[in-house]
Amino acid sequence: MAAVVPVTAEIAKRAAALAWQDLPDDLVERTKQCLLDWFAVTIAGAQEDLTGILIAEALEDGAKGPATLVGRSETVLPSTAALINGAASHALDYDDVNFSMGGHPTVTVVPALLALGEQMKASGRLFIESFVAGYETSGRVGRLVAPSHYQKGFHVTGTVGSFSATAAAGRMLGLDDRQLAVAFGIAATQAAGLKSNFGTMCKPLHAGTASEHGLRAARLAARGFTARGDSLECDQGFASSQSDHLNAEAALGEPPSGWHLRNNLFKYHAACYLTHAPIECAKEIRLKNNFPPERVQKILLRIDSGADKVCNIPNPTTGLEAKFSLRQTVAMALTGVDTANLESYNEAVTQEPRIKDLRDKMSIDFQPHWAHSLAEMAIQLDDGTTIEVKHDSGIPWADLEKQRQAIETKFDSLVTPLLGVSGTRRLHDAIERIDELTDVGKLVRASARS
Amino acid sequence: MAAVVPVTAEIAKRAAALAWQDLPDDLVERTKQCLLDWFAVTIAGAQEDLTGILIAEALEDGAKGPATLVGRSETVLPSTAALINGAASHALDYDDVNFSMGGHPTVTVVPALLALGEQMKASGRLFIESFVAGYETSGRVGRLVAPSHYQKGFHVTGTVGSFSATAAAGRMLGLDDRQLAVAFGIAATQAAGLKSNFGTMCKPLHAGTASEHGLRAARLAARGFTARGDSLECDQGFASSQSDHLNAEAALGEPPSGWHLRNNLFKYHAACYLTHAPIECAKEIRLKNNFPPERVQKILLRIDSGADKVCNIPNPTTGLEAKFSLRQTVAMALTGVDTANLESYNEAVTQEPRIKDLRDKMSIDFQPHWAHSLAEMAIQLDDGTTIEVKHDSGIPWADLEKQRQAIETKFDSLVTPLLGVSGTRRLHDAIERIDELTDVGKLVRASARS
Repeated sequence: MAAVVPVTAEIAKRAAALAWQDLPDDLVERTKQCLLDWFAVTIAGAQEDLTGILIAEALEDGAKGPATLVGRSETVLPSTAALINGAASHALDYDDVNFSMGGHPTVTVVPALLALGEQMKASGRLFIESFVAGYETSGRVGRLVAPSHYQKGFHVTGTVGSFSATAAAGRMLGLDDRQLAVAFGIAATQAAGLKSNFGTMCKPLHAGTASEHGLRAARLAARGFTARGDSLECDQGFASSQSDHLNAEAALGEPPSGWHLRNNLFKYHAACYLTHAPIECAKEIRLKNNFPPERVQKILLRIDSGADKVCNIPNPTTGLEAKFSLRQTVAMALTGVDTANLESYNEAVTQEPRIKDLRDKMSIDFQPHWAHSLAEMAIQLDDGTTIEVKHDSGIPWADLEKQRQAIETKFDSLVTPLLGVSGTRRLHDAIERIDELTDVGKLVRASARS
Repeated sequence: MAAVVPVTAEIAKRAAALAWQDLPDDLVERTKQCLLDWFAVTIAGAQEDLTGILIAEALEDGAKGPATLVGRSETVLPSTAALINGAASHALDYDDVNFSMGGHPTVTVVPALLALGEQMKASGRLFIESFVAGYETSGRVGRLVAPSHYQKGFHVTGTVGSFSATAAAGRMLGLDDRQLAVAFGIAATQAAGLKSNFGTMCKPLHAGTASEHGLRAARLAARGFTARGDSLECDQGFASSQSDHLNAEAALGEPPSGWHLRNNLFKYHAACYLTHAPIECAKEIRLKNNFPPERVQKILLRIDSGADKVCNIPNPTTGLEAKFSLRQTVAMALTGVDTANLESYNEAVTQEPRIKDLRDKMSIDFQPHWAHSLAEMAIQLDDGTTIEVKHDSGIPWADLEKQRQAIETKFDSLVTPLLGVSGTRRLHDAIERIDELTDVGKLVRASARS
């Protein structure tokens, strides 16, 4: 039998050692973009019913405290803030994704760090170091147990996300290698989340519990609470009980770009992920060719056949159905509707004559075994010309500045209705200046509603 | 494919319907015995390091509140009390066991009920109804996923125990069938606990997190938080992801005695469980025959070979080693040492000449494939007579009154050093009168230290 690689210890070591001076400039910019995106989706998600239920429950339990709830006026205990901000940030399923993790990386890491950072008045630089430590851990642990962990029914955001939240909180607390490995043991023994609960309020709850557990694991380890230091790879440990895989090489081998954070994928449209590539195709055709929608004769979309069962509602009549309609979302993009805005998806837009007209002109050619993030589109105009483009929404954008513009559009679109123009600007500026902040509490407090 | 039995709904229905008038008298007595035992082990466990760490962490988080911590003077939030009392009650691994559950049934149920009951001023009868609802659920869910759930590496007390805590808290809150089935869905998505963490502070932590999660699941369901109502049996649900078994018939078929609670097993000795049957043999021989230990010539013990690797330290020198020594514990029982008392296991007792002498006279005949709870003992005296007995510590005692006496001995032994004689009496009386109490808060407050 091959010797077991001490992967828990190695992942702990890398996270504990992550330091500001080792971070390339683009990672600081990428962290800021993750924060812009996270605050935007969380402020919006904080208005959802599930967030309200969690807050009511916490307040009845007596968990009022000094920690800020993003997009809300109530304040709670730090551990409760990690739970509720985590759940709120995944409420709309509009947060970022990482394919190595196989889940949503930011929603378990940021809530734990804001709760802890506000309490200990952590600096912005310590926040960034801790965020990257957590983010990279999500990619490593995700690759360790993929793909069977997810296939068995575990929601990676809840399970793997517990380890990344632990790494982040542990880094912020200054745990050494050994302490962080023990903290991973405490995280492993609490990590949970079932995919069968997708479509219920439990899916976002998983992000919250992972963040809460990660914070708890790191803090208990700092106090000398004991756990195994090899929980990822040991017999009857995390991988052994919840995966058929233990890909130590994949977990410890870094991605070609050097950092998992460089492979972060943002969602730019408040619709099903499988509509994103078609929307991008339509946007590109519209922006580059500048024709009125009435000139369109035919639209042909080629996309993976998996989308047929997920988001192929041909004639949507509600906002929710619109989000799961390839024809509707493409028609919206072709007519310049802001697909990043939650409010754009409503009953009225499904009944607009020129939208319905475009839906009827579209045919879909489902391709077996394509990448589910890939789309090809051909649009024929009334003069017989055909414009063709393709887009893969699974590839990180090479142009960081263009990516920032797209995220800022999303940020403005989601935040302004709730914080107002000046509040939105204030939060934006705090995120921009995070690397100069002496107390990240200032940042999170800028996200509250008065 | 056979139709899937709606086992979640059925288990929820039975728990939600459990009513005082349907409880045979002995179940009330059994509940009181579980409470005597639970308070005894929890008051002792509350003095352990791990409990102190959890309290320090909670207080730094700001979780001071009105809920009582058993055996302590601090008070915390209700949810925090469920966590900490749960962990404290499993700290010594001296709490009760149920073979159908395959774990420790009481330590996840009682902490959730005390926290909730103190907050809502629940009556003693409601407490008993809720306790039995939780206890029976532990047996049903345990049988559903046994044995592969445990074999894969999951600590049943943490996982299955989350469902029993949910059933208990849900019954106390008056959830209907459908709400309780949803609460099980919220519990399923949080349930966790790894066996590889046995031997660390995480093992008792699992009892605490299960209790905390169960309370949360029931309270969130009461507020309309959503989850699947078939989480035990659905594809990618609890059983599907964490067991190779889905024994619906076993789960829904009640035990021959009619109630899982009738099969509850108490630990009467503060030593490894596998020493219990040999200790009971030695006690019976001593009590029935009344000879001085010096008259013993030979002791022969027959026991399952599994014990050889677990508790066969031949010449212990510390209190901890004494707990894992068949020879030592039998010698202590033969000389009348109180094996229920934590203080009895110390360095001095391992070096007493007459104890060492008895250890040396004992031989052990390990039997392959025996029940691990079974022991046979033959003692030869100096006049050539041989006394033989056997004991199976896996069989509930038929004599409830004798069982009560043994538990009361354990209760006095563990509680008196911490609450004093009058405090111990006061707590004992509150447990005895629980079915007349209008507010169980009085009971739990009687267990605090001033």
